[in-house]
This record gives sequence, C-alpha cells and structure tokens, in this order.
Amino acid sequence: MKKQVIAVACMSALAAGGAALAQQKPEDAIKYRQSALFIVGQNFGPLAAMAQGKIPYDKDAAVRYAEIAAFVMKLPWNSFGPGTDTGNTKAKPGIWQNLDDFQAKRDKMLAEIEKLPQAAGDLDSLKAQVGATGKACKACHDEYRAK
Amino acid sequence: MKKQVIAVACMSALAAGGAALAQQKPEDAIKYRQSALFIVGQNFGPLAAMAQGKIPYDKDAAVRYAEIAAFVMKLPWNSFGPGTDTGNTKAKPGIWQNLDDFQAKRDKMLAEIEKLPQAAGDLDSLKAQVGATGKACKACHDEYRAK
Repeated sequence: MKKQVIAVACMSALAAGGAALAQQKPEDAIKYRQSALFIVGQNFGPLAAMAQGKIPYDKDAAVRYAEIAAFVMKLPWNSFGPGTDTGNTKAKPGIWQNLDDFQAKRDKMLAEIEKLPQAAGDLDSLKAQVGATGKACKACHDEYRAK
Repeated sequence: MKKQVIAVACMSALAAGGAALAQQKPEDAIKYRQSALFIVGQNFGPLAAMAQGKIPYDKDAAVRYAEIAAFVMKLPWNSFGPGTDTGNTKAKPGIWQNLDDFQAKRDKMLAEIEKLPQAAGDLDSLKAQVGATGKACKACHDEYRAK
C-alpha cells in the first residue's frame, strides 16, 4: 500500500519534472540542493555496497532505496538560480558558464537513475545500473563540484 | 545494556514508510533527517503562502509541492537511532523518553500530509489541509525540537 503511494508520487513527479520553488532565497536554494543530493547519496550508498558485495543484497530494501534516490534526484535542479553560485557551496562557476553541458549531464544522470528502481529487483541488473548511474553522477561531480 | 535495548526499540518503533538505511553513521542520520525535513519545509512554505493569499494559487505547482512534501516526509523516521540524540541536532531527549507519543505525533502528521496532494487541487481544500498539516507539524516541534 505504502509502496503504491510512493510509486504514484514518483510517477507524477516524473511527469512534472520537479517543482520550481516560489521565492526560494539563494541560501535556501543552496541548502535545498545539498539536502536533496545528500539524501540521494545516502540511498545510493547501500545500493553500491550491495552491488559490490559489501553488504548482503536485499531486494525489497534495494527497490526502496532506488525509488527514493530516483524521486529525490529530481528535486535540486530548480535550485541553481541567480545568486546561488557563491556562499556555502561547492558548485563551480563552470555550471553557469557551460549550462548546456551541465544540463546534458543532469539529463543523462536522470535517465540512468530512473532505471534504478526496476534494476534493483535483481542483483545482476542492479550491479549494471549502479555502475551506469555512478558513472553519470561522477561525470558531473568531476567537472562541476569542487573537492 | 539498557541503553542498547532502548536503542533497538527505537529503531523498530520509528521505522515508517522510508527505507532503513544500512550502516548509516549517527552524524549522517542527523544530517539525513534534517535534510528531509528542510525539503519538506521548503515545499510546505509556498503551500502555506498560497493558503494565506500571500502568493497566487497555482494548482499545478501546489500539487507538485504537496507530492514532494508527502513523499519526503516519509524519509526521516529511520534516522533517530542510537547515537543520534547528541551532536548537531535540535532533537530533544524527550523523543527517546516518550517514544510512543513521538511516534503517535509522527503518524498523525503522516496521515495529514498524505492528504495534501489531493487537497492541493482546490484552494479551499488546500487551505483546510494546510491548516491540519501545519498543526500536526507544530505539535511535534513544540514538544520535541529545541528552539
């Protein structure tokens, strides 16, 4: 039942592509995108650990992690607006200088992470999709996130 | 020993719709629940502003905010485990001393916020449901979150 609620919420957010947050202050926008990416990382972490055999594969848990990661990964993208390039952020100026490339990397990553919930239902497909998703995360971090 | 028994009781009592995060460090658990509640607040804010007439009512945006708030509000509840009562947190010790009450307040709040996406489709029902949800948030914050 709860799973169904989550699935429905996922589907509509997918169609809507996340919400543009009205009147979000720059410092809140930075905190918002960091919060979302932290949540994604915390759910992706155990998926990667399962894929690498570091923790036992648990199908139900894996699918839930993947659903959460895929849903929350839609959220940060409206929070890179004016004034969010400075302050408490590791976002590099290149994001706003190469916006087309940044958005292309974002779209690639969203395309990969959207496949994760279904892939998580089987260990072999999970391994493959964790690899593809992690690679897409890394492509953006390497280029656009400061160490 | 006693502390550990209580901690284990916490973990299972607090487990709600979200995924129990494997091997989450206490400092990450604190950051995780704060991240989730921040995201909820950032989406609830514009809904409250619409309900109060401070910004124009936008049906599509309202439904999306509500879907995000309802989904993300399921996430923090597995992150109140052992060792997460100290450190960078405003969580008051009463949470772990009155776990039944904390859990009851959580369940009340989840029940209200789950109604928000449907209510958001109409301004009058949004107003009512923003009120009921905000009241449920406040009940927990008043009791269990330090100023």
